Amino acid sequence: MPASKDNALVLLSGGQDSTTCLYWAIDYFDGGTVATLAFDYGQRHRIELECAVKIAATAGVAHDCLPIDTFAALGGDALTDSAIDVHADLGPNSGLPNTFVPGRNLIFLTYAAAFAYPRDIRHLVIGVAQTDYSGYPDCREHTISSLQKTIRLGMDNDITIHAPLMHRSKKETVELAIALGALDVMAMTHTCYNGKRPPCGTCPACQLRAKGFAEAGAEDPLLTNS
Amino acid sequence: MPASKDNALVLLSGGQDSTTCLYWAIDYFDGGTVATLAFDYGQRHRIELECAVKIAATAGVAHDCLPIDTFAALGGDALTDSAIDVHADLGPNSGLPNTFVPGRNLIFLTYAAAFAYPRDIRHLVIGVAQTDYSGYPDCREHTISSLQKTIRLGMDNDITIHAPLMHRSKKETVELAIALGALDVMAMTHTCYNGKRPPCGTCPACQLRAKGFAEAGAEDPLLTNS
Repeated sequence: MPASKDNALVLLSGGQDSTTCLYWAIDYFDGGTVATLAFDYGQRHRIELECAVKIAATAGVAHDCLPIDTFAALGGDALTDSAIDVHADLGPNSGLPNTFVPGRNLIFLTYAAAFAYPRDIRHLVIGVAQTDYSGYPDCREHTISSLQKTIRLGMDNDITIHAPLMHRSKKETVELAIALGALDVMAMTHTCYNGKRPPCGTCPACQLRAKGFAEAGAEDPLLTNS
Repeated sequence: MPASKDNALVLLSGGQDSTTCLYWAIDYFDGGTVATLAFDYGQRHRIELECAVKIAATAGVAHDCLPIDTFAALGGDALTDSAIDVHADLGPNSGLPNTFVPGRNLIFLTYAAAFAYPRDIRHLVIGVAQTDYSGYPDCREHTISSLQKTIRLGMDNDITIHAPLMHRSKKETVELAIALGALDVMAMTHTCYNGKRPPCGTCPACQLRAKGFAEAGAEDPLLTNS
Protein backbone atom coordinates (compact mmCIF):
# COMPACT_ATOMS: atom_id res chain seq x y z
CA MET A 1 0.00 0.00 0.00
CA PRO A 2 1.31 3.46 -0.86
CA ALA A 3 2.21 5.67 2.04
CA SER A 4 1.29 9.30 1.68
CA LYS A 5 4.80 10.36 2.62
CA ASP A 6 6.23 8.46 -0.35
CA ASN A 7 7.55 10.21 -3.41
CA ALA A 8 5.95 9.78 -6.81
CA LEU A 9 6.89 10.37 -10.43
CA VAL A 10 4.11 11.31 -12.84
CA LEU A 11 4.55 10.63 -16.55
CA LEU A 12 3.41 13.99 -17.90
CA SER A 13 2.74 14.18 -21.62
CA GLY A 14 1.13 17.59 -21.49
CA GLY A 15 -2.30 16.13 -22.22
CA GLN A 16 -5.54 16.14 -20.29
CA ASP A 17 -5.16 12.67 -18.77
CA SER A 18 -1.61 12.95 -17.48
CA THR A 19 -2.32 16.43 -16.12
CA THR A 20 -5.28 15.05 -14.20
CA CYS A 21 -2.95 12.33 -12.91
CA LEU A 22 -0.47 14.96 -11.74
CA TYR A 23 -3.13 16.64 -9.61
CA TRP A 24 -4.31 13.24 -8.39
CA ALA A 25 -0.74 12.47 -7.30
CA ILE A 26 -0.27 15.82 -5.57
CA ASP A 27 -3.41 15.04 -3.60
CA TYR A 28 -2.62 11.37 -2.96
CA PHE A 29 1.06 11.72 -2.03
CA ASP A 30 0.51 14.84 0.03
CA GLY A 31 3.27 14.07 2.50
CA GLY A 32 5.82 13.19 -0.18
CA THR A 33 7.36 14.88 -3.18
CA VAL A 34 5.78 14.65 -6.61
CA ALA A 35 7.92 15.11 -9.73
CA THR A 36 7.09 14.84 -13.42
CA LEU A 37 8.81 13.27 -16.39
CA ALA A 38 8.18 13.81 -20.10
CA PHE A 39 9.69 12.07 -23.12
CA ASP A 40 10.92 13.79 -26.22
CA TYR A 41 10.51 10.96 -28.72
CA GLY A 42 10.27 13.09 -31.83
CA GLN A 43 6.55 13.66 -31.57
CA ARG A 44 5.31 15.85 -34.39
CA HIS A 45 3.68 18.27 -31.99
CA ARG A 46 6.43 19.84 -29.91
CA ILE A 47 3.70 21.86 -28.24
CA GLU A 48 3.00 18.82 -26.00
CA LEU A 49 6.43 19.15 -24.41
CA GLU A 50 6.00 22.90 -23.92
CA CYS A 51 2.62 22.27 -22.29
CA ALA A 52 4.19 19.75 -19.90
CA VAL A 53 6.82 22.27 -18.80
CA LYS A 54 4.17 24.94 -18.15
CA ILE A 55 1.83 22.55 -16.34
CA ALA A 56 4.60 21.30 -14.03
CA ALA A 57 5.63 24.87 -13.26
CA THR A 58 2.02 25.82 -12.54
CA ALA A 59 1.66 22.83 -10.23
CA GLY A 60 4.97 23.72 -8.56
CA VAL A 61 6.66 20.37 -9.15
CA ALA A 62 10.02 19.40 -10.65
CA HIS A 63 10.05 18.44 -14.29
CA ASP A 64 12.50 16.46 -16.40
CA CYS A 65 12.45 15.36 -20.00
CA LEU A 66 14.24 12.30 -21.34
CA PRO A 67 15.11 12.01 -25.04
CA ILE A 68 14.09 8.89 -26.95
CA ASP A 69 15.53 8.69 -30.45
CA THR A 70 14.66 5.02 -30.85
CA PHE A 71 11.01 5.37 -31.81
CA ALA A 72 11.85 7.43 -34.89
CA ALA A 73 14.46 4.83 -35.85
CA LEU A 74 11.86 2.08 -35.47
CA GLY A 75 9.91 4.17 -37.93
CA GLY A 76 6.62 4.11 -39.65
CA ASP A 77 4.14 5.44 -37.15
CA ALA A 78 2.05 8.53 -37.63
CA LEU A 79 2.92 10.31 -34.37
CA THR A 80 6.62 10.47 -35.16
CA ASP A 81 6.76 10.23 -38.95
CA SER A 82 5.67 13.52 -40.45
CA ALA A 83 5.29 11.85 -43.85
CA ILE A 84 2.35 9.81 -42.57
CA ASP A 85 -1.04 11.46 -42.12
CA VAL A 86 -3.08 10.85 -39.02
CA HIS A 87 -6.40 9.40 -40.03
CA ALA A 88 -9.46 9.08 -37.89
CA ASP A 89 -10.01 5.58 -39.21
CA LEU A 90 -7.97 2.59 -38.17
CA GLY A 91 -4.62 1.57 -39.60
CA PRO A 92 -3.94 -1.49 -41.69
CA ASN A 93 -2.79 -3.77 -38.86
CA SER A 94 -4.43 -5.29 -35.82
CA GLY A 95 -7.40 -2.97 -35.75
CA LEU A 96 -5.24 -0.33 -34.09
CA PRO A 97 -4.99 3.32 -35.06
CA ASN A 98 -1.98 4.16 -37.18
CA THR A 99 -0.67 6.25 -34.29
CA PHE A 100 0.31 2.99 -32.59
CA VAL A 101 3.92 2.57 -31.44
CA PRO A 102 4.14 -1.05 -30.27
CA GLY A 103 4.81 -1.16 -26.57
CA ARG A 104 5.25 2.57 -26.18
CA ASN A 105 3.96 2.63 -22.61
CA LEU A 106 6.16 -0.33 -21.68
CA ILE A 107 9.16 1.72 -22.74
CA PHE A 108 7.96 4.90 -21.05
CA LEU A 109 7.30 3.15 -17.74
CA THR A 110 10.55 1.18 -17.79
CA TYR A 111 12.51 4.37 -18.39
CA ALA A 112 10.52 6.11 -15.66
CA ALA A 113 11.40 3.29 -13.27
CA ALA A 114 15.07 3.60 -14.23
CA PHE A 115 14.84 7.36 -13.64
CA ALA A 116 13.17 6.74 -10.26
CA TYR A 117 15.70 4.07 -9.24
CA PRO A 118 18.44 6.32 -7.80
CA ARG A 119 16.00 9.03 -6.64
CA ASP A 120 14.14 7.37 -3.76
CA ILE A 121 10.92 7.27 -5.79
CA ARG A 122 8.88 4.08 -5.51
CA HIS A 123 5.65 5.18 -7.20
CA LEU A 124 4.99 5.86 -10.87
CA VAL A 125 1.76 7.44 -12.06
CA ILE A 126 0.53 7.13 -15.64
CA GLY A 127 -2.67 8.30 -17.31
CA VAL A 128 -3.53 5.19 -19.28
CA ALA A 129 -7.15 4.08 -19.36
CA GLN A 130 -8.62 0.77 -20.35
CA THR A 131 -11.80 2.63 -21.25
CA ASP A 132 -9.92 4.63 -23.88
CA TYR A 133 -11.46 4.25 -27.32
CA SER A 134 -8.18 3.36 -28.95
CA GLY A 135 -7.75 -0.21 -27.80
CA TYR A 136 -4.02 0.17 -27.25
CA PRO A 137 -3.01 -3.10 -25.58
CA ASP A 138 -0.33 -1.35 -23.54
CA CYS A 139 -3.03 0.71 -21.80
CA ARG A 140 -4.80 -2.30 -20.30
CA GLU A 141 -4.76 -3.13 -16.60
CA HIS A 142 -3.37 -6.63 -17.16
CA THR A 143 -0.48 -5.19 -19.15
CA ILE A 144 0.34 -2.57 -16.53
CA SER A 145 0.20 -5.03 -13.64
CA SER A 146 2.36 -7.49 -15.57
CA LEU A 147 4.85 -4.72 -16.31
CA GLN A 148 4.94 -3.74 -12.64
CA LYS A 149 5.91 -7.31 -11.79
CA THR A 150 8.49 -7.37 -14.58
CA ILE A 151 10.12 -4.12 -13.45
CA ARG A 152 10.18 -5.31 -9.83
CA LEU A 153 11.95 -8.48 -10.93
CA GLY A 154 14.19 -6.74 -13.44
CA MET A 155 15.30 -3.90 -11.17
CA ASP A 156 15.02 -5.73 -7.86
CA ASN A 157 12.91 -2.97 -6.35
CA ASP A 158 9.36 -2.52 -5.13
CA ILE A 159 8.05 0.03 -7.61
CA THR A 160 4.28 0.51 -7.79
CA ILE A 161 2.57 1.74 -10.94
CA HIS A 162 -0.59 3.76 -10.38
CA ALA A 163 -3.07 4.26 -13.19
CA PRO A 164 -5.83 6.26 -11.53
CA LEU A 165 -7.76 6.70 -14.77
CA MET A 166 -7.68 3.01 -15.71
CA HIS A 167 -11.41 2.45 -15.26
CA ARG A 168 -12.60 6.01 -15.70
CA SER A 169 -14.44 7.23 -18.75
CA LYS A 170 -13.49 10.60 -20.21
CA LYS A 171 -16.51 12.02 -18.41
CA GLU A 172 -15.26 10.63 -15.09
CA THR A 173 -11.76 11.95 -15.79
CA VAL A 174 -13.18 15.45 -16.25
CA GLU A 175 -15.16 15.01 -13.03
CA LEU A 176 -11.98 13.94 -11.22
CA ALA A 177 -10.10 17.00 -12.50
CA ILE A 178 -12.92 19.21 -11.25
CA ALA A 179 -12.92 17.50 -7.84
CA LEU A 180 -9.15 18.04 -7.59
CA GLY A 181 -9.44 21.73 -8.47
CA ALA A 182 -7.61 21.13 -11.74
CA LEU A 183 -10.21 22.36 -14.19
CA ASP A 184 -8.53 25.70 -14.95
CA VAL A 185 -5.16 24.10 -15.69
CA MET A 186 -6.83 22.08 -18.45
CA ALA A 187 -6.53 25.25 -20.54
CA MET A 188 -2.78 24.52 -20.66
CA THR A 189 -3.11 20.92 -21.85
CA HIS A 190 -2.78 19.67 -25.40
CA THR A 191 -4.96 17.00 -26.94
CA CYS A 192 -5.39 17.64 -30.68
CA TYR A 193 -3.76 14.99 -32.91
CA ASN A 194 -3.42 17.64 -35.60
CA GLY A 195 -1.38 19.90 -33.31
CA LYS A 196 -3.83 22.80 -33.57
CA ARG A 197 -4.31 25.42 -30.87
CA PRO A 198 -7.21 26.20 -30.60
CA PRO A 199 -7.87 22.50 -31.25
CA CYS A 200 -9.16 21.30 -34.62
CA GLY A 201 -12.25 19.80 -32.99
CA THR A 202 -12.53 17.10 -35.62
CA CYS A 203 -9.72 14.61 -34.91
CA PRO A 204 -10.64 11.61 -32.71
CA ALA A 205 -8.70 12.99 -29.73
CA CYS A 206 -10.53 16.34 -29.89
CA GLN A 207 -13.87 14.59 -30.27
CA LEU A 208 -13.23 12.28 -27.32
CA ARG A 209 -12.18 15.23 -25.17
CA ALA A 210 -15.25 17.27 -26.16
CA LYS A 211 -17.53 14.33 -25.39
CA GLY A 212 -16.01 13.98 -21.89
CA PHE A 213 -16.50 17.64 -21.05
CA ALA A 214 -20.02 17.64 -22.48
CA GLU A 215 -21.04 14.55 -20.50
CA ALA A 216 -19.53 16.01 -17.32
CA GLY A 217 -21.52 19.18 -17.92
CA ALA A 218 -18.39 21.33 -17.87
CA GLU A 219 -16.92 23.85 -20.26
CA ASP A 220 -13.45 23.01 -21.56
CA PRO A 221 -11.25 25.97 -20.58
CA LEU A 222 -9.01 25.14 -23.54
CA LEU A 223 -11.82 26.28 -25.86
CA THR A 224 -12.48 29.54 -24.04
CA ASN A 225 -8.91 30.48 -22.97
CA SER A 226 -6.71 29.36 -25.86
CA MET B 1 6.70 -24.40 -29.20
CA PRO B 2 8.91 -22.75 -31.79
CA ALA B 3 8.61 -24.03 -35.31
CA SER B 4 11.85 -24.34 -37.18
CA LYS B 5 10.42 -22.41 -40.11
CA ASP B 6 9.80 -19.38 -37.89
CA ASN B 7 11.91 -16.27 -38.10
CA ALA B 8 14.06 -15.10 -35.21
CA LEU B 9 15.79 -11.92 -34.13
CA VAL B 10 19.00 -12.24 -32.13
CA LEU B 11 20.11 -9.39 -29.90
CA LEU B 12 23.75 -9.20 -30.94
CA SER B 13 26.02 -7.11 -28.75
CA GLY B 14 29.21 -8.29 -30.40
CA GLY B 15 30.19 -10.30 -27.34
CA GLN B 16 30.85 -13.97 -26.79
CA ASP B 17 27.41 -14.83 -25.39
CA SER B 18 25.24 -13.14 -28.01
CA THR B 19 27.45 -14.51 -30.79
CA THR B 20 26.97 -18.02 -29.42
CA CYS B 21 23.22 -17.29 -29.37
CA LEU B 22 23.34 -16.24 -33.03
CA TYR B 23 24.83 -19.58 -34.01
CA TRP B 24 22.35 -21.36 -31.74
CA ALA B 25 19.50 -19.55 -33.54
CA ILE B 26 20.86 -20.32 -37.01
CA ASP B 27 20.86 -23.98 -35.99
CA TYR B 28 17.51 -23.93 -34.19
CA PHE B 29 15.52 -21.90 -36.72
CA ASP B 30 17.05 -23.64 -39.68
CA GLY B 31 13.94 -23.34 -41.86
CA GLY B 32 13.35 -19.68 -41.07
CA THR B 33 15.28 -16.47 -41.35
CA VAL B 34 17.55 -15.25 -38.58
CA ALA B 35 18.37 -11.56 -38.27
CA THR B 36 20.38 -9.61 -35.72
CA LEU B 37 19.86 -6.35 -33.87
CA ALA B 38 22.35 -4.24 -31.96
CA PHE B 39 21.85 -1.11 -29.89
CA ASP B 40 24.01 1.96 -30.02
CA TYR B 41 23.38 3.34 -26.53
CA GLY B 42 26.53 5.37 -26.22
CA GLN B 43 28.65 2.51 -24.94
CA ARG B 44 32.22 3.60 -24.34
CA HIS B 45 33.61 0.83 -26.49
CA ARG B 46 32.36 1.40 -30.03
CA ILE B 47 34.35 -1.68 -30.99
CA GLU B 48 31.41 -3.79 -29.75
CA LEU B 49 29.19 -2.41 -32.49
CA GLU B 50 31.87 -2.96 -35.14
CA CYS B 51 32.28 -6.55 -33.92
CA ALA B 52 28.53 -7.12 -34.23
CA VAL B 53 28.53 -5.92 -37.85
CA LYS B 54 31.43 -8.21 -38.74
CA ILE B 55 29.97 -11.21 -36.93
CA ALA B 56 26.58 -10.84 -38.64
CA ALA B 57 28.29 -10.53 -42.02
CA THR B 58 30.38 -13.63 -41.30
CA ALA B 59 27.27 -15.55 -40.29
CA GLY B 60 25.47 -14.29 -43.41
CA VAL B 61 22.52 -12.72 -41.61
CA ALA B 62 20.90 -9.30 -41.77
CA HIS B 63 21.97 -6.77 -39.17
CA ASP B 64 20.37 -3.61 -37.89
CA CYS B 65 21.35 -1.18 -35.17
CA LEU B 66 18.92 0.97 -33.21
CA PRO B 67 20.10 4.14 -31.47
CA ILE B 68 19.27 4.66 -27.79
CA ASP B 69 20.14 8.11 -26.50
CA THR B 70 18.09 7.68 -23.32
CA PHE B 71 20.61 5.70 -21.26
CA ALA B 72 23.18 8.48 -21.47
CA ALA B 73 20.50 10.99 -20.43
CA LEU B 74 19.60 8.77 -17.47
CA GLY B 75 23.27 9.10 -16.63
CA GLY B 76 25.65 7.87 -14.07
CA ASP B 77 26.60 4.37 -15.13
CA ALA B 78 30.06 3.27 -16.00
CA LEU B 79 29.31 1.70 -19.39
CA THR B 80 28.01 4.93 -20.86
CA ASP B 81 29.63 7.61 -18.73
CA SER B 82 33.27 7.94 -19.66
CA ALA B 83 33.91 9.97 -16.50
CA ILE B 84 33.25 6.89 -14.35
CA ASP B 85 35.85 4.16 -14.10
CA VAL B 86 34.91 0.54 -14.33
CA HIS B 87 35.97 -1.21 -11.17
CA ALA B 88 36.16 -4.91 -10.62
CA ASP B 89 34.55 -4.52 -7.23
CA LEU B 90 30.89 -3.84 -6.71
CA GLY B 91 29.21 -0.46 -6.88
CA PRO B 92 27.71 1.40 -3.96
CA ASN B 93 24.09 0.26 -4.45
CA SER B 94 22.29 -3.07 -4.25
CA GLY B 95 25.41 -5.20 -4.44
CA LEU B 96 25.47 -4.66 -8.20
CA PRO B 97 28.50 -3.75 -10.29
CA ASN B 98 28.68 -0.09 -11.22
CA THR B 99 28.13 -1.08 -14.85
CA PHE B 100 24.46 -1.59 -13.99
CA VAL B 101 21.86 0.24 -16.08
CA PRO B 102 18.57 -0.47 -14.30
CA GLY B 103 16.34 -2.55 -16.54
CA ARG B 104 18.63 -2.42 -19.53
CA ASN B 105 17.58 -5.82 -20.84
CA LEU B 106 13.91 -4.92 -20.37
CA ILE B 107 14.44 -1.97 -22.69
CA PHE B 108 16.50 -3.95 -25.20
CA LEU B 109 13.95 -6.74 -25.44
CA THR B 110 10.96 -4.40 -25.64
CA TYR B 111 12.61 -2.50 -28.49
CA ALA B 112 13.50 -5.79 -30.16
CA ALA B 113 9.87 -6.86 -29.92
CA ALA B 114 8.76 -3.54 -31.42
CA PHE B 115 11.30 -4.03 -34.21
CA ALA B 116 10.03 -7.58 -34.77
CA TYR B 117 6.37 -6.51 -34.70
CA PRO B 118 5.96 -5.48 -38.35
CA ARG B 119 8.53 -7.97 -39.67
CA ASP B 120 6.84 -11.33 -39.14
CA ILE B 121 9.33 -12.27 -36.43
CA ARG B 122 7.88 -14.03 -33.37
CA HIS B 123 11.07 -15.17 -31.67
CA LEU B 124 13.67 -13.10 -29.85
CA VAL B 125 16.97 -14.58 -28.72
CA ILE B 126 19.09 -13.01 -26.00
CA GLY B 127 22.31 -14.14 -24.37
CA VAL B 128 21.45 -13.47 -20.74
CA ALA B 129 22.46 -16.06 -18.17
CA GLN B 130 21.28 -16.51 -14.63
CA THR B 131 24.60 -18.14 -13.89
CA ASP B 132 26.43 -14.94 -14.77
CA TYR B 133 28.59 -13.67 -11.94
CA SER B 134 27.12 -10.19 -12.07
CA GLY B 135 23.78 -10.77 -10.41
CA TYR B 136 21.95 -8.43 -12.77
CA PRO B 137 18.29 -8.94 -11.90
CA ASP B 138 17.23 -8.37 -15.52
CA CYS B 139 19.20 -11.47 -16.55
CA ARG B 140 17.16 -13.85 -14.40
CA GLU B 141 14.73 -16.40 -15.81
CA HIS B 142 11.79 -15.07 -13.78
CA THR B 143 12.40 -11.59 -15.13
CA ILE B 144 12.62 -12.74 -18.74
CA SER B 145 9.49 -14.89 -18.52
CA SER B 146 7.59 -12.05 -16.85
CA LEU B 147 8.76 -9.68 -19.58
CA GLN B 148 7.63 -12.13 -22.26
CA LYS B 149 4.16 -12.08 -20.73
CA THR B 150 4.22 -8.29 -20.45
CA ILE B 151 5.23 -7.83 -24.09
CA ARG B 152 2.56 -10.31 -25.23
CA LEU B 153 -0.05 -8.33 -23.32
CA GLY B 154 1.32 -4.94 -24.28
CA MET B 155 1.74 -5.65 -27.99
CA ASP B 156 -1.06 -8.17 -28.35
CA ASN B 157 1.22 -10.68 -30.04
CA ASP B 158 2.70 -14.08 -29.26
CA ILE B 159 6.37 -13.25 -29.07
CA THR B 160 8.66 -15.84 -27.46
CA ILE B 161 11.92 -14.89 -25.79
CA HIS B 162 14.64 -17.51 -25.93
CA ALA B 163 17.58 -17.37 -23.57
CA PRO B 164 19.57 -20.48 -24.50
CA LEU B 165 22.41 -19.60 -22.13
CA MET B 166 20.16 -18.99 -19.11
CA HIS B 167 21.36 -22.01 -17.15
CA ARG B 168 24.72 -22.48 -18.81
CA SER B 169 28.00 -21.67 -17.12
CA LYS B 170 30.69 -19.92 -19.14
CA LYS B 171 32.31 -23.30 -19.60
CA GLU B 172 29.08 -24.72 -21.03
CA THR B 173 28.66 -21.66 -23.28
CA VAL B 174 32.10 -22.29 -24.76
CA GLU B 175 31.19 -25.96 -25.22
CA LEU B 176 27.97 -24.93 -26.99
CA ALA B 177 29.89 -22.63 -29.32
CA ILE B 178 32.27 -25.46 -30.15
CA ALA B 179 29.37 -27.86 -30.79
CA LEU B 180 27.79 -25.29 -33.13
CA GLY B 181 31.02 -24.82 -35.07
CA ALA B 182 31.29 -21.26 -33.80
CA LEU B 183 34.66 -21.40 -32.08
CA ASP B 184 36.61 -19.59 -34.79
CA VAL B 185 34.17 -16.69 -34.94
CA MET B 186 34.87 -16.05 -31.25
CA ALA B 187 38.04 -14.32 -32.47
CA MET B 188 35.73 -11.54 -33.72
CA THR B 189 33.87 -11.03 -30.45
CA HIS B 190 34.54 -8.37 -27.85
CA THR B 191 34.42 -8.95 -24.12
CA CYS B 192 36.91 -6.66 -22.34
CA TYR B 193 35.31 -4.01 -20.12
CA ASN B 194 38.36 -1.84 -20.68
CA GLY B 195 37.88 -1.88 -24.46
CA LYS B 196 41.28 -3.42 -25.12
CA ARG B 197 42.11 -5.57 -28.13
CA PRO B 198 43.97 -7.83 -27.40
CA PRO B 199 41.92 -7.95 -24.20
CA CYS B 200 43.34 -6.58 -20.93
CA GLY B 201 42.95 -9.96 -19.26
CA THR B 202 42.43 -8.41 -15.85
CA CYS B 203 38.90 -6.93 -15.88
CA PRO B 204 36.12 -9.20 -14.54
CA ALA B 205 34.73 -9.82 -18.03
CA CYS B 206 38.10 -10.95 -19.37
CA GLN B 207 38.67 -13.14 -16.33
CA LEU B 208 35.25 -14.78 -16.62
CA ARG B 209 35.81 -15.44 -20.31
CA ALA B 210 39.26 -16.92 -19.69
CA LYS B 211 37.87 -19.16 -16.96
CA GLY B 212 35.17 -20.47 -19.34
CA PHE B 213 37.65 -21.34 -22.07
CA ALA B 214 40.06 -22.90 -19.60
CA GLU B 215 37.37 -25.08 -18.02
CA ALA B 216 36.14 -26.14 -21.48
CA GLY B 217 39.69 -27.10 -22.37
CA ALA B 218 39.69 -24.82 -25.41
CA GLU B 219 41.96 -22.05 -26.60
CA ASP B 220 40.29 -18.67 -26.99
CA PRO B 221 40.89 -17.69 -30.64
CA LEU B 222 40.64 -14.04 -29.57
CA LEU B 223 43.96 -14.45 -27.77
CA THR B 224 45.76 -16.10 -30.66
CA ASN B 225 44.17 -14.23 -33.61
CA SER B 226 43.70 -10.68 -32.37
